[in-house]
Amino acid sequence: MAEFFKGIGVIPFEGADSVNPLAFKHYNKDEKVGDKTMAEHLRFAMSYWHTLCAEGGDPFGSTTAARPWNQIANPIEMAKAKVDAGFEFMQKLGIEYFCFHDRDIAPEGKDLAETNQILDEVVAYIKVKMQETGIKLLWGTANCFNNKRFMHGAGTTCNAEVFAYAAAQIKKAIEVTKELGGENYVFWGGREGYETLLNTDTGLELDNFARLLQMAVDYAKEIGFTGQFLIEPKPKEPTKHQYDFDTATVLAFLRKYNLDTYFKMNIEANHATLAGHTFQHELNMSRINNVLGSIDANQGDLMLGWDTDQFPTNIYDATMAMYEVLKAGGIAPGGFNFDSKVRRGSFEEADLFIAYIAGMDTFAKGLKVAYNLLKDGVLEDFVADRYASFNEGIGKDIVSGNVGFKELEAYALKQQPIVNKSGRQEWLETVVNQYIYNNK
Amino acid sequence: MAEFFKGIGVIPFEGADSVNPLAFKHYNKDEKVGDKTMAEHLRFAMSYWHTLCAEGGDPFGSTTAARPWNQIANPIEMAKAKVDAGFEFMQKLGIEYFCFHDRDIAPEGKDLAETNQILDEVVAYIKVKMQETGIKLLWGTANCFNNKRFMHGAGTTCNAEVFAYAAAQIKKAIEVTKELGGENYVFWGGREGYETLLNTDTGLELDNFARLLQMAVDYAKEIGFTGQFLIEPKPKEPTKHQYDFDTATVLAFLRKYNLDTYFKMNIEANHATLAGHTFQHELNMSRINNVLGSIDANQGDLMLGWDTDQFPTNIYDATMAMYEVLKAGGIAPGGFNFDSKVRRGSFEEADLFIAYIAGMDTFAKGLKVAYNLLKDGVLEDFVADRYASFNEGIGKDIVSGNVGFKELEAYALKQQPIVNKSGRQEWLETVVNQYIYNNK
Amino acid sequence: MAEFFKGIGVIPFEGADSVNPLAFKHYNKDEKVGDKTMAEHLRFAMSYWHTLCAEGGDPFGSTTAARPWNQIANPIEMAKAKVDAGFEFMQKLGIEYFCFHDRDIAPEGKDLAETNQILDEVVAYIKVKMQETGIKLLWGTANCFNNKRFMHGAGTTCNAEVFAYAAAQIKKAIEVTKELGGENYVFWGGREGYETLLNTDTGLELDNFARLLQMAVDYAKEIGFTGQFLIEPKPKEPTKHQYDFDTATVLAFLRKYNLDTYFKMNIEANHATLAGHTFQHELNMSRINNVLGSIDANQGDLMLGWDTDQFPTNIYDATMAMYEVLKAGGIAPGGFNFDSKVRRGSFEEADLFIAYIAGMDTFAKGLKVAYNLLKDGVLEDFVADRYASFNEGIGKDIVSGNVGFKELEAYALKQQPIVNKSGRQEWLETVVNQYIYNNK
Amino acid sequence: MAEFFKGIGVIPFEGADSVNPLAFKHYNKDEKVGDKTMAEHLRFAMSYWHTLCAEGGDPFGSTTAARPWNQIANPIEMAKAKVDAGFEFMQKLGIEYFCFHDRDIAPEGKDLAETNQILDEVVAYIKVKMQETGIKLLWGTANCFNNKRFMHGAGTTCNAEVFAYAAAQIKKAIEVTKELGGENYVFWGGREGYETLLNTDTGLELDNFARLLQMAVDYAKEIGFTGQFLIEPKPKEPTKHQYDFDTATVLAFLRKYNLDTYFKMNIEANHATLAGHTFQHELNMSRINNVLGSIDANQGDLMLGWDTDQFPTNIYDATMAMYEVLKAGGIAPGGFNFDSKVRRGSFEEADLFIAYIAGMDTFAKGLKVAYNLLKDGVLEDFVADRYASFNEGIGKDIVSGNVGFKELEAYALKQQPIVNKSGRQEWLETVVNQYIYNNK
Repeated sequence: MAEFFKGIGVIPFEGADSVNPLAFKHYNKDEKVGDKTMAEHLRFAMSYWHTLCAEGGDPFGSTTAARPWNQIANPIEMAKAKVDAGFEFMQKLGIEYFCFHDRDIAPEGKDLAETNQILDEVVAYIKVKMQETGIKLLWGTANCFNNKRFMHGAGTTCNAEVFAYAAAQIKKAIEVTKELGGENYVFWGGREGYETLLNTDTGLELDNFARLLQMAVDYAKEIGFTGQFLIEPKPKEPTKHQYDFDTATVLAFLRKYNLDTYFKMNIEANHATLAGHTFQHELNMSRINNVLGSIDANQGDLMLGWDTDQFPTNIYDATMAMYEVLKAGGIAPGGFNFDSKVRRGSFEEADLFIAYIAGMDTFAKGLKVAYNLLKDGVLEDFVADRYASFNEGIGKDIVSGNVGFKELEAYALKQQPIVNKSGRQEWLETVVNQYIYNNK
Repeated sequence: MAEFFKGIGVIPFEGADSVNPLAFKHYNKDEKVGDKTMAEHLRFAMSYWHTLCAEGGDPFGSTTAARPWNQIANPIEMAKAKVDAGFEFMQKLGIEYFCFHDRDIAPEGKDLAETNQILDEVVAYIKVKMQETGIKLLWGTANCFNNKRFMHGAGTTCNAEVFAYAAAQIKKAIEVTKELGGENYVFWGGREGYETLLNTDTGLELDNFARLLQMAVDYAKEIGFTGQFLIEPKPKEPTKHQYDFDTATVLAFLRKYNLDTYFKMNIEANHATLAGHTFQHELNMSRINNVLGSIDANQGDLMLGWDTDQFPTNIYDATMAMYEVLKAGGIAPGGFNFDSKVRRGSFEEADLFIAYIAGMDTFAKGLKVAYNLLKDGVLEDFVADRYASFNEGIGKDIVSGNVGFKELEAYALKQQPIVNKSGRQEWLETVVNQYIYNNK
Repeated sequence: MAEFFKGIGVIPFEGADSVNPLAFKHYNKDEKVGDKTMAEHLRFAMSYWHTLCAEGGDPFGSTTAARPWNQIANPIEMAKAKVDAGFEFMQKLGIEYFCFHDRDIAPEGKDLAETNQILDEVVAYIKVKMQETGIKLLWGTANCFNNKRFMHGAGTTCNAEVFAYAAAQIKKAIEVTKELGGENYVFWGGREGYETLLNTDTGLELDNFARLLQMAVDYAKEIGFTGQFLIEPKPKEPTKHQYDFDTATVLAFLRKYNLDTYFKMNIEANHATLAGHTFQHELNMSRINNVLGSIDANQGDLMLGWDTDQFPTNIYDATMAMYEVLKAGGIAPGGFNFDSKVRRGSFEEADLFIAYIAGMDTFAKGLKVAYNLLKDGVLEDFVADRYASFNEGIGKDIVSGNVGFKELEAYALKQQPIVNKSGRQEWLETVVNQYIYNNK
Repeated sequence: MAEFFKGIGVIPFEGADSVNPLAFKHYNKDEKVGDKTMAEHLRFAMSYWHTLCAEGGDPFGSTTAARPWNQIANPIEMAKAKVDAGFEFMQKLGIEYFCFHDRDIAPEGKDLAETNQILDEVVAYIKVKMQETGIKLLWGTANCFNNKRFMHGAGTTCNAEVFAYAAAQIKKAIEVTKELGGENYVFWGGREGYETLLNTDTGLELDNFARLLQMAVDYAKEIGFTGQFLIEPKPKEPTKHQYDFDTATVLAFLRKYNLDTYFKMNIEANHATLAGHTFQHELNMSRINNVLGSIDANQGDLMLGWDTDQFPTNIYDATMAMYEVLKAGGIAPGGFNFDSKVRRGSFEEADLFIAYIAGMDTFAKGLKVAYNLLKDGVLEDFVADRYASFNEGIGKDIVSGNVGFKELEAYALKQQPIVNKSGRQEWLETVVNQYIYNNK
């Protein structure tokens, strides 16, 4: 078994300051933050696709990074070398989870039977690696968007043959995820949307998508797969409109088809912002609806209108994300998957390590800031005071359902002039800054 | 009773070509389009606020248009003069419906009791006008966003006193709408959202909003108001995030609180685009969920990020909007309200007439184009053919629920290579162009 | 020589209504619009890259269209087959011009010398085809963005070796363009920009870019290349910030380095909209600065934040584009290049024809509408009247430079209250609609 | 003279930690950062309009804050009370500069003569205050956008009468700025743009705008006003397109009309982002063109498409802004004006103080971080190394103009395969984070 990252050793935690440019003050996974260690809070996962498959191509340019494991001619040997590279990478970084699409880990064969057979062979290889290293599978998924057969959708295709194929592929991916002990299974429908309403029967497509998800629920029950099903919202790209636009849109869909008890959300930061929401907004909406499942911890560029999938380095976003996670009682059985790719110009292997460390340290810092904010109750107390009028008098009556329009009109007709209090937004923003700067 | 638009007579239909600049080839409201006249299809409504109240101010500039009815010193006389102006305007244009917020038609008094009393006086005056002219009320609503008391929301305020006031105000607005025979009642929550998550309890706010809507449902039942309740989605502005972001978000909310049978959507074109959707998308999503209620027929500027509320002149948008309306079986009891304002530089009274004619004629043309597209079945036939595989064989099995993952996998393992067909988007776009150019 | 589009014959002009789906009322290139034929106005060009090289891949999916000419194993034979396919395509559609990047027409060899030799061989092959068919080269350009060597820029690279290579490549591309009688040469710098200011010396990069352009000017003079040099503005994508953001930005740059007499603009519709401008805005800014050179006639999706390069079917955009072109006295020696690609789902060869016809007919219709608007003077007369105050009295003094602040203050101190006139925007928009609907 | 902010005393620097909510760890204006004190680096200015005139209204709601000084009935007494409030505010916060529009400080009279007379009276009152307090005028400007006479523009109006009035108004504003020792004079043209190209002669409008600026240059010379003239770019809002879109657009304009030696830029953060640029981008473009004049230090919301003018609390933006300022050698004679308004819900007087402190402290922190980054050379050294190839060999030849296309082709034909180095963007982003967290 080849060592692929020869120049790079195991990156220590909290002790790597000496070797530039990998010398960040790396977070300490064993440090306690409240009752849990950082590692328990921050269930970081390596994304197979961006880390091991991607090589820096973009719509205007060819690849910049020739990853050595991808240079092997025999496709199955190549797939196994990729496994080796991935586990070496995770071990050197101390990452305990990974995520994959079926087609990331194994290539297609000449037909579905052969494809499944190849997949089984690679899965067996991965399973051994997992046992050797203790590294776990956060989630698996099926790639039903790359192959041209999915050009018009998978679960929402106009072609019943394609639906059948997608169903078969997802069946296998769930089986494989179960085989590897995956704690979750994700649905991201890259082609589940439309390009133009001129040729699209949205009603049929959405009904069919619900049928597909119901089949998955039924099949999981049948085979005893107990991992959490997740849906990953995204508003657009690659299709003009993606059906799983954002958390609210997915909830509307799940509730319509009585699927809402089976699915939680896999929230991605860059997908949130493409939908016109902050990352925190999507996490908050998921939390208050009890569907916060897992996180794709990347970052977009708000000046750009496409999915840049940058490694997260913005401390504000990381802090408020961790704030929502802590309020939700933690992210498990989900985790923080880096659905992030190094920039096309960051093509060296060291950049892979640097970028992951950048992302992990940002979230580790965000965890500490969020924990301290919560511990001190600075935001919580302000909010409690702000809504205090709903704990007594007419407010309590409203919340408890004791009053209707007539009672409220009677009350309002006798009301004193209404006095509001400042929302203190500028102050609250500064409080967050103080916690960031001062390591409070 | 003063005549306010002295220089402008009744605008004829289909005969106004001679007098510039009001000389468009105005649509003929009596022309049959299928079984119905244009007037029956196109239930146009005047928006009280933009037409009679607005005077051209914007965040960087003061008013440009001194509407004469607003110059009267006594507030109640002013309110009645505004009624006169509005009915004169509608009669001269042949508009048969209007819409208002409570505060558009009558000013606030020193307290709620006086406010309601003033409202009653103006409502009585309007009622007489309606009887004299046959003009009808499409919908009423309560303005719970302008007054500073609503700075932190109305149904979603942090202040229970404000909630009580809003409930009382909405109660009265529903009564007034009933009194005037309003066919619908609209909820648009200008301040129902948040400025920052740092000070907001979204869970409580949304629960409270559901409580408010439930109270409205209960009260309507109690007083026998049978008009349709509508919610108007908007994603942002004035608040950073509006809870009623888009149709899907509202549906998720209504379904959560079991309110979905009581509310339909009032779709506004410019709100659709601010949410990152086309106007047609929002209409389509409403249609396939059986909640297409009414339409605010304005237009945004896709290069600008705020609500420009322009009069609609884009024939593509009007055509595809009418396409969805015709497929939904018509818009009644809803209609097409012009929630549109003349530009600040279009400050003359003639511009009010010109702009309404521009909007009405655009939709009249759109109606004809959409009707012809449907009559000829050009898009419908293409779509039917595109999805034909779901009418037979495995496709029919999928749709009818006869198969699950195992059967589909068995099928896929024996499948021939999958063949897709072109989506022909460029052709379909050109077909629409042909129908627009050629008056087919 | 193989025929590649066997099922499709020469598409007639104005006579193709019988065969669906290629049966649009195709524009008549011989029809006179004013003094010139449509063909003289509308110098349409085929883009080599999107038409012959692209196969439907996108960042989330592999290719959907296996163009037969690209299946040939020998790279030079493949390049020649592509020439055959391109000329067959242009002849069947009656397109008289084409455009290419050096790397579209010929692949790279093992080093620059071999690369140039391959290029020469293909150019010779093209030259014969041009002579046989009468088809002309609108412009050539160098692709200095795809190859990984340009990851940090070409003229604005941080690596002097890359600058040297780019200069050599552009030298050759200009020579080749001259050899084929190209009427223009375009600079589009796909990597001329930055990803982050943290690692970028913008001052040096822009100075170097000016040096590169000056070298091109000098070399063109030396070899007697008299074609027009064009710069194509684009604000972002692939880099976060492209130096040639829009027309104004390019003009600022050219004027700083005294290069403004040598370059005109190649305006692309989708690049205009990505910069936050309308297509017409960029054409207008180019026209009033006498730098309107040529047009990339595609269309973006204003709901999407990336370069969709759709075929243009929006009649408003085409009309106002032709309006600017007619006011500029025509586009020659530039033309209308379709830098447009069929959608990924429009993968059949027929779609290539359909899409070009869609684009050409839209511009042909736009030409007629714009010509009629100008012939009737409807907009021009309104504008002339609107600015009439600058033709006499104090307005004339201002324009002629006869007055300064002191004279104007003296005038203003004696002024009557100022009266403005309505800008009549809603009316003007409707006038354009009337000309579109009524084939006036 | 009334005290308006009675509950709030003078805010100490570095000693305010005890009293909530004004208890930030306030920056120390006397602390040395390099050779200069913080106060010398950070020439903060109060914006008259947002601070003293604005009362919380927005397009959907009336005012929320009744500022007491605005309640005085007599307009001139009101204007003087506003002066009192402003100087009290600045003294309590330790702010040493202010900025105003002519109409902020004094209301219009019945005609221009009376308007100027009122202005003179208030200016005299301000002058005494300035002498008493040592507070200085950073810049003055004329408000040629609010009054309805400017609905179609001021310098770019279609109405010569309006041009004359604007010229007279600007003349007076320059005089007043000189009288008060203003160090700069700003041109922000709120209505200098267009709403639609259908009614606009952009060529004439831009020529006229250049004429206006030339008159200003001439008049300043005549009266000996030696302050710096500044132009403030903004891309849109209130007009659809503003002529001063961004720095590059203004430079193109100034260079065309040979005005470029007389004007520098007043860069506003929120205007940068509305143009699709980062704040740093606009500062960088100004710096490398030697036109960085002054800064409007606010912040936008990248999810919202209008000018939110928030108080700046983002440490990344503040850090990179200070980085550019330090590289430019400082901002004087410009400064940092808070063109920022408290949110509508932050309506209490304390919020004004809190918000200014938030903004000032954010920039003070940004100054320290930027200074440390520069002192340690972390980014500078990386950049120097990255471009090192232009200091020797072929790179040096390129920069010094010794080579052209032929020499470079000869070089490239003999080149070794090109090797690039990683741009290390993820690492650089993390370095900035380290400097922020660790107070390095």
